[in-house]
Amino acid sequence: MPRKSFPLSEVYRLLEPGPVVMLTTARGGRANVMTQSWHTMIDFEPPIVGCIVSNRGYSFNILKSTRECVISIPTVELARKVVGCGNTSGRSVDKFKKFHLTPAAASCVGAPLIAECYANLECKVIDASMAARYNLFILEVLKAWIDPSRKHPRTIHHLGRGYFMVAGRVIKLPSKMK
Amino acid sequence: MPRKSFPLSEVYRLLEPGPVVMLTTARGGRANVMTQSWHTMIDFEPPIVGCIVSNRGYSFNILKSTRECVISIPTVELARKVVGCGNTSGRSVDKFKKFHLTPAAASCVGAPLIAECYANLECKVIDASMAARYNLFILEVLKAWIDPSRKHPRTIHHLGRGYFMVAGRVIKLPSKMK
Repeated sequence: MPRKSFPLSEVYRLLEPGPVVMLTTARGGRANVMTQSWHTMIDFEPPIVGCIVSNRGYSFNILKSTRECVISIPTVELARKVVGCGNTSGRSVDKFKKFHLTPAAASCVGAPLIAECYANLECKVIDASMAARYNLFILEVLKAWIDPSRKHPRTIHHLGRGYFMVAGRVIKLPSKMK
Repeated sequence: MPRKSFPLSEVYRLLEPGPVVMLTTARGGRANVMTQSWHTMIDFEPPIVGCIVSNRGYSFNILKSTRECVISIPTVELARKVVGCGNTSGRSVDKFKKFHLTPAAASCVGAPLIAECYANLECKVIDASMAARYNLFILEVLKAWIDPSRKHPRTIHHLGRGYFMVAGRVIKLPSKMK
């Protein structure tokens, strides 16, 4: 999928609507990917993101030690792969291979982009002090990529137990909010 | 709007899809409400939520001192009021009055529910230690309410600069994910 640099100042517009994301990590030449929806913007610029990564999952220790990841945003066409990645563990499965996802080299971090995702955010961990208590990692987005051809990406939003809301119509209201 | 107790174990299903929420606070007999989208689930049960409340806003000090709030989830019918609350400050405006929102007594906290919202979550601050650095408050949901008549609530999801995505169709996939 085509990939273009995306302004860091606009990254909040990708995450604020609350899409399911995929978080990639890599260590020792082996990449992993997990599915998650527990993230929030914390600041606009540089974009700071809070991300919950369970300490029961395979990604937790990799993220803690490498302090790098990529947040990839999938659209509804990838829903089955997204669920597949959420239902398996990187401990026993090479998820990129199993779910036919294509890793692509990032520019600032060792974790890979996911070529099939419409947006990819290269991140470093800037604060892991809340990881022990809340599984909370504070990330800074260093570099953002987007597929410029996707004008209205159909992101998916997890409603629990296999149900997903697919991004619907867009409305515009007069607002001073950023 | 009718209101029914909602199981705490299911609260994540309301917040995980990333809706715009309204956060109410109260102090000295005066209630306030702010609009925000920067929140994340942190744990399932009891439901723990991370919430970013800017230290430039009127709610910050009230939340910090009272350690109580309500997270109310509006649907698209309320979009203009939601934007109105996001574009004004409680310092100078009684937003409940100005935007014709109806405060309703909560059962566990001093902050009010918003009667027009389809879901209301009564919360206490359990950790404000990241408020100074990240504007991050860790909340525990004590009590949840929902309008049982709303089977497919059209929540709104902020895309920035006055654009909102309205919750679209729902799909179901086989999944072991909670």
